[in-house]
Formats: sequence, structure tokens, C-alpha cells
Amino acid sequence: MNIKNLTNIKEKEIVPGFHGKFVHSENMTIAYWHIDARSILPEHTHIHEQIVNVMEGTLKLKIENETQTLTAGHVAVIPPNVPHSGEAVTACTVIDVFYPARKDYQK
Amino acid sequence: MNIKNLTNIKEKEIVPGFHGKFVHSENMTIAYWHIDARSILPEHTHIHEQIVNVMEGTLKLKIENETQTLTAGHVAVIPPNVPHSGEAVTACTVIDVFYPARKDYQK
Repeated sequence: MNIKNLTNIKEKEIVPGFHGKFVHSENMTIAYWHIDARSILPEHTHIHEQIVNVMEGTLKLKIENETQTLTAGHVAVIPPNVPHSGEAVTACTVIDVFYPARKDYQK
Repeated sequence: MNIKNLTNIKEKEIVPGFHGKFVHSENMTIAYWHIDARSILPEHTHIHEQIVNVMEGTLKLKIENETQTLTAGHVAVIPPNVPHSGEAVTACTVIDVFYPARKDYQK
């Protein structure tokens, strides 16, 4: 049975201040982030659809040219290839899901 | 910008005791469940890949013929068309993600 315990998954710092643990299925990747306060995610794009779930903290998210401030309970859907960037106003806990699976996070 | 606040999404009771809020992207559905203690999810299958994330509580999950007890931090990957069932030992908070999107949860 494919059950993982996040305690046993090693955290990777993908961007300075963005500490992630990843679980992959055939077609999806789920990322569990702990983000340090004031960390910056530079603008980027990817082919993957993404759903951003803020669990704790305050995250500024810019999608294309619009910026919104997200807190616990906010859910953002980012379509493929749409430029986005972020800034952790406080320390944050965020769960992202991606389709298709993030091969770059499987290395 | 496609940002939702879970507070504004109406909860649906899909199976007795399983109260869900759903957000859909083109290819994925994310389900936020509050499950009452002792609720039973009968065995079922679906074409969707599923990743089960237990956030709070204790959930017994049977995938094919194997049963495991999941608590916070456990993540289960269920491939398409694999029979599974569950039982909330305590009240639970669970986040499920599905690929492709669950059209049956969009009604």
C-alpha cells in the first residue's frame, strides 16, 4: 500500500526560504511547504496546472498582473503557463497540487 | 484571478458523515473534508487517481485488501480503479486530490 508519512520525507529548499516535501502519483504532485517569513518566490511559469492552498500564515500571490493577499482557507487556481510569483508576508504553511506530476521535484 | 475562500463554499454531505467542500481546476479536484467520528465510506472505485492527506484525526483506510490506520501527516496514493473504503475512527479533517477532475462533485 502506497502510504507515506511526511515525517519520513526529507525537506528540500527549492527556492531560498521555501522548504518543501513532495509526494507524487502518476499524474499529480502534492507539495507541503513551510515558508520562512519574507521569502520571495520570483515570477515563473510552468506547464503544470496548480492549486495553492494556504493553511497558515499570510501569502501575497501575484498571478499575471493581479496581486492578492491569501490567508488560511484561501485557494488559488493557476492555469498552465500563467506567470506567477509570491511573497510570504509571515511564515506560511501551504499545500500545492500540480498536474501533471512535477518531474523536476522527483530528482 | 481565480481565488476562492473556503468560508464561502457550501459544504455538501456526499456520504453520511462526510462533509466536503470542493475546488476544481481543469484537470484536478481538491476536496476538503470534515468527517464525523465513526462515519463509514463504503468500498467503491473510480477512474480518478486520488491522494489522501490526513490533516487531523484517525482514519482507517482499506485499499484493495490492506487496511492501515492513518493520522496527521500520512499521505496515501490510490491508483485509478482500485477498490477502497474508509472509517473515521475519530472526527477527521482530510484533504483529497483527484485527477482527472471529479465531474460528479461539480453538480
